Amino acid sequence: MPRLAIIGLGLIGGSIGLALKQSGLRDLEVAGYDREPDVTRRAKRLGAIDRDAHDLEDAVDGAAIVVIATPILHIRKVLEEIAPLLGEGAVVTDTASTKREVLAWADELLPQTVSFVGGHPIAGKETPGLDAAEASLFKGRQWAITPTLGAAERAIQTVENLVRLCGAEPVTIDAAEHDSYLAAVSHLPLIAATALFSLSSSSRAWPELAALAGPGFRDTTRLASSSPDLSHDICLTNRENLVHWIDRYMEELQRLRRLIEDEASQEDLIAAFARVQATRDAFLEAPPAKPQPSRAIDIASAGDQMLSFMVGDYVVRRTREVEEMIRQREKDAMRRPDER
Amino acid sequence: MPRLAIIGLGLIGGSIGLALKQSGLRDLEVAGYDREPDVTRRAKRLGAIDRDAHDLEDAVDGAAIVVIATPILHIRKVLEEIAPLLGEGAVVTDTASTKREVLAWADELLPQTVSFVGGHPIAGKETPGLDAAEASLFKGRQWAITPTLGAAERAIQTVENLVRLCGAEPVTIDAAEHDSYLAAVSHLPLIAATALFSLSSSSRAWPELAALAGPGFRDTTRLASSSPDLSHDICLTNRENLVHWIDRYMEELQRLRRLIEDEASQEDLIAAFARVQATRDAFLEAPPAKPQPSRAIDIASAGDQMLSFMVGDYVVRRTREVEEMIRQREKDAMRRPDER
Repeated sequence: MPRLAIIGLGLIGGSIGLALKQSGLRDLEVAGYDREPDVTRRAKRLGAIDRDAHDLEDAVDGAAIVVIATPILHIRKVLEEIAPLLGEGAVVTDTASTKREVLAWADELLPQTVSFVGGHPIAGKETPGLDAAEASLFKGRQWAITPTLGAAERAIQTVENLVRLCGAEPVTIDAAEHDSYLAAVSHLPLIAATALFSLSSSSRAWPELAALAGPGFRDTTRLASSSPDLSHDICLTNRENLVHWIDRYMEELQRLRRLIEDEASQEDLIAAFARVQATRDAFLEAPPAKPQPSRAIDIASAGDQMLSFMVGDYVVRRTREVEEMIRQREKDAMRRPDER
Repeated sequence: MPRLAIIGLGLIGGSIGLALKQSGLRDLEVAGYDREPDVTRRAKRLGAIDRDAHDLEDAVDGAAIVVIATPILHIRKVLEEIAPLLGEGAVVTDTASTKREVLAWADELLPQTVSFVGGHPIAGKETPGLDAAEASLFKGRQWAITPTLGAAERAIQTVENLVRLCGAEPVTIDAAEHDSYLAAVSHLPLIAATALFSLSSSSRAWPELAALAGPGFRDTTRLASSSPDLSHDICLTNRENLVHWIDRYMEELQRLRRLIEDEASQEDLIAAFARVQATRDAFLEAPPAKPQPSRAIDIASAGDQMLSFMVGDYVVRRTREVEEMIRQREKDAMRRPDER
């Protein structure tokens, strides 16, 4: 019976096991290994794996496919250790959130008889760990695929099929592009959420703030609950891209801050909010299925024209209301000088 | 039959109507009015109100309680118009996200025979508008209550009961404190989410970014879909507090950025992520029920001690791993000078 090995049985590794089980795939033995023996045993009890391996060698023994779902920094060591154990034609993939460094490790450490095809399921939830694993975690999600230059075509197809079996949509992309795009839509949000939570929770008023924090605060800071291993590994392996986007984020905050502070730029502030809402609504309604540069650019510019049109009317109406409010405030201020 | 009027039938006004209906309260006629006649009619069809009033006067006719759930900037005008129409002893409340300015309007515009008790349900969802309204929107949520100095005790109790009927927990708080706390946990997250979405979506790579954006991006930017009216009104009526917190947020981002960039401060970065995760987990498990400064401070310092203890071991272990990774990188760099 063909064998697949999952190394690392946290939220992602455990969910891959459960998803494969639920896909109804027969004739595949899934072996699993986690450096915490208790997690490996629990994964078997949960039905995420068929066989609980007692070490890495036992896990990859005879495996045609190896999925490395450990924290990013452990991948290098895992590759080093399994390299001499892999059979000819074996396919190795991973699930790390950054891809350039992982591909460099694979190039360096794996024998030429083995194909490495990087992978990154773009899915997650508030709580990490095996207990949060679920078969439906990847359903309808994108799963980035970043093959090494030397990967066999058959190996790429194997990983794409694995992704589809998990319910996700494979998106093939260059590793460097992957890291630069993910810095904007995944790693920067992680830092934004972490900074937001850390700011409030280190305030002396935190007990009062926490009591008044609603679902908006909870959603916006959700990523601050990410595994600290994961967060830190992302920073370490995608540093330049991330720092670039943090700088641009601070500039954007500074721009909004200026609009908020300056009574004369209320029209621009209104337009900014209206444009963001309209763009996000369009994004939620029809998220692009996969990167298709030529077509996407047409859609974007057509969408832009439509947005400008819709937003325009709204901004004119609101600006009138706001000007009236500001005039009223000034009148009030003159009428009630004692309150100033 | 006692009458209650809801002015403004969007997400919040509509949900209040539905929640009151579902509370099983008999002998109360709920009249509703929205400046969009079509929305008023739809609210009646949805069962959110008993009677669809054709103007403000019709809505508040004989009303013992008036709930103003319009955008913040419209509240002043509504107060002005209903002031001469309200019966003696009527109770007026609102649902605005900022409270100081609203209370000043009520003080200025309402007759002394009427009690104004400010309100702010700390609830919401991705989509604004009547169609998104639901009876359970406030279930288990906090609802801030900010009475004016002149409000009758009976009026405060009436609003507290209204809040409980909607399934929420009333939290009485001073209006100025409310605005300063909410700036941190609600209005700053709104700006953080808006800046994050606006940054990505104005990038030339937006089609590619959107295709790779996962649930983390979606959650972190959820508040960017807030009604632009609401977002802008919040900025206008809570400007000083908000600007203060945006400045502190940029400082916090700058702090994290420095830790990320400097290879020598990885230990501090790991500790920052670990501390934020642990604090947020504690917050999710046991959010304070309401502000109780004296008790809350004890809990906070006891929690701090426990956290330092838990985080300490973790940081030591991770720092070793990271140092090894950095050493390995340097070794690699020396071994492969051609790739630099």
